[in-house]
Amino acid sequence: MIRRQVGIRDVAAAAGVSVTTVSHVLNETPHTRTSDDTKERVKQAAEQLGYKANRLARGLRINASGMVGLITEEIAITPYAGRIIQGAQEEAAKRGFTLAILNSELNPDPEIDPKLSQALVDRQTDGLIYATVYHDEVVVPAQMHAAPAVLIGARDRDGDVPSVMPDERAGAAAVIDMLVEAGHTRIAFAASSIDVPATRGRLVGVREALADAGLLDEALIVEREAEAAGGYAAARALLDRPAEDRSTALFCYNDRMAMGVYRAAAELGLSIPGDLSVVGFDDQAPIPHSLYPELTTVALPHYEMGAWAVNTLSALIDGKDEYRLLGAHATLLPCPIVERGSVARLGV
Amino acid sequence: MIRRQVGIRDVAAAAGVSVTTVSHVLNETPHTRTSDDTKERVKQAAEQLGYKANRLARGLRINASGMVGLITEEIAITPYAGRIIQGAQEEAAKRGFTLAILNSELNPDPEIDPKLSQALVDRQTDGLIYATVYHDEVVVPAQMHAAPAVLIGARDRDGDVPSVMPDERAGAAAVIDMLVEAGHTRIAFAASSIDVPATRGRLVGVREALADAGLLDEALIVEREAEAAGGYAAARALLDRPAEDRSTALFCYNDRMAMGVYRAAAELGLSIPGDLSVVGFDDQAPIPHSLYPELTTVALPHYEMGAWAVNTLSALIDGKDEYRLLGAHATLLPCPIVERGSVARLGV
Repeated sequence: MIRRQVGIRDVAAAAGVSVTTVSHVLNETPHTRTSDDTKERVKQAAEQLGYKANRLARGLRINASGMVGLITEEIAITPYAGRIIQGAQEEAAKRGFTLAILNSELNPDPEIDPKLSQALVDRQTDGLIYATVYHDEVVVPAQMHAAPAVLIGARDRDGDVPSVMPDERAGAAAVIDMLVEAGHTRIAFAASSIDVPATRGRLVGVREALADAGLLDEALIVEREAEAAGGYAAARALLDRPAEDRSTALFCYNDRMAMGVYRAAAELGLSIPGDLSVVGFDDQAPIPHSLYPELTTVALPHYEMGAWAVNTLSALIDGKDEYRLLGAHATLLPCPIVERGSVARLGV
Repeated sequence: MIRRQVGIRDVAAAAGVSVTTVSHVLNETPHTRTSDDTKERVKQAAEQLGYKANRLARGLRINASGMVGLITEEIAITPYAGRIIQGAQEEAAKRGFTLAILNSELNPDPEIDPKLSQALVDRQTDGLIYATVYHDEVVVPAQMHAAPAVLIGARDRDGDVPSVMPDERAGAAAVIDMLVEAGHTRIAFAASSIDVPATRGRLVGVREALADAGLLDEALIVEREAEAAGGYAAARALLDRPAEDRSTALFCYNDRMAMGVYRAAAELGLSIPGDLSVVGFDDQAPIPHSLYPELTTVALPHYEMGAWAVNTLSALIDGKDEYRLLGAHATLLPCPIVERGSVARLGV
């Protein structure tokens, strides 16, 4: 669903002025120093190019508001929503946009509620960002096909709206590669029992990398609740055995599980990393710095996804419709390993 | 500095319509079903009452934008900024406002940067919320005196702008009262070494409540870094002694310090809560649920402060200038104890 439309850049080029000036003139921004002559030229260029009609046809008013809207699901329960907001907000500030945020309830359904996007269209935002964490793919409402829009955390089922996600698979595989490189051959994984994209992506990455190294042993992959208690249970199940049968490294689905592993290790008399290397995922403050030794983990690109979203949205608002092509596949951002003190090199 | 002004409610009363209708008419909100007749009546009422002139005199445009602005300092480093945003956003949604968020850098200075408030005034927000955590009092820029504005986390030095803060002192005192009531007589406190309002408020509450109970012993109050490592150091300093000399309860400035106390207790062979009761502060996810036993702590009213701020702002926007009287003293919201499994009743 690619639409070629007249963008604000076309108007700027035709009028021989900057995009900012076009925005100011069509937006009737107060206190700008644009001459009446220039204003007239911009308005004529917009009219000749059909810029107004086109924008209205897309459900947006002619006056660019200089505001982009971010809809997030349950900001309170996603630990890193703050980083998404920060990335989006700082990128928006650089570009002269204000970020308006709408927090919605968790949506168990993969169909985005059209009331949410309509609320922001009613506020006359120039574009929409929808951030979710519970689905690989979502069904995007009509307003998000019509207006400049991007998704964080899920693909558009129709392949029209550009999207960005963490590369969970590569992040998890990189941890296995690091452990293998450090000499570990009995590597266990405490997987999550919650059915979300991160669960699947990390598990696939672990299995692939272990198989590539010739070290895949399904008995060393256990699935538990993705909380400290689940990590504790996984560690008790995996580690309560003689040293010669025990894994030397336990990679956890997330940092909360790793916290439970630390408790189990203390109870079993295992020192970290001397007897057991532990790696988490998420870099969820304040866990990694609060554990002793500090936890080696994998960071999520939440800040970067927020910034990417505003960047891409800004290009769409400027009429660079080639960015719509990004909708066909999700853009994957890297999840880098953050090395701290919980992984030992084995004597090789 | 109380200013009596003509509010939107006065215009609504004079025109015999609702406040919403006045807002829609003066805002020229598209797609509303107000008759031309009504529109004319509202405009005349506004003009007769001098509503427009008055609003302009306060540095605001006549057209209410239906948007309130929230400025926060360093959203990423304050664990609960998400809850402030959620409270503000849900209250704003109930009232038909959109929340625009501006994230600024940490300001070590008690003077709020006027560029921040100006940025939101330029966006024609109807009112401003400024949230900070590092000062008891701030110096508010002119735009925040002129426009409807409220503060979260700090008082206005001029006593003009309403503000809301957690009642840290009462929250800390309530913990001591609870421990005394449970039979503890040797109660230690791990204080924070960072000079912020929370540090001072909690310490004052602890000292007052211990003194009231006749149990204040300055040797049992130690000050350390407000992180897990600081809590660990405090616990080692306080607890590494024979049982008869040891405190039976250790209250920590925050949950991160309590996490370090759990590690020290494990190393010293002390069971929680059998040998040692531990209480935190902040209810900082995911710590309290991730510790074993789960941590009894004190919750901060971040959601409630966000909602309070929008509520009060909404009253100011509606011209209820009596709310300006709130600026003279900060409104203190309670910090309730969240009882979990880390406190024991002693045999009495």
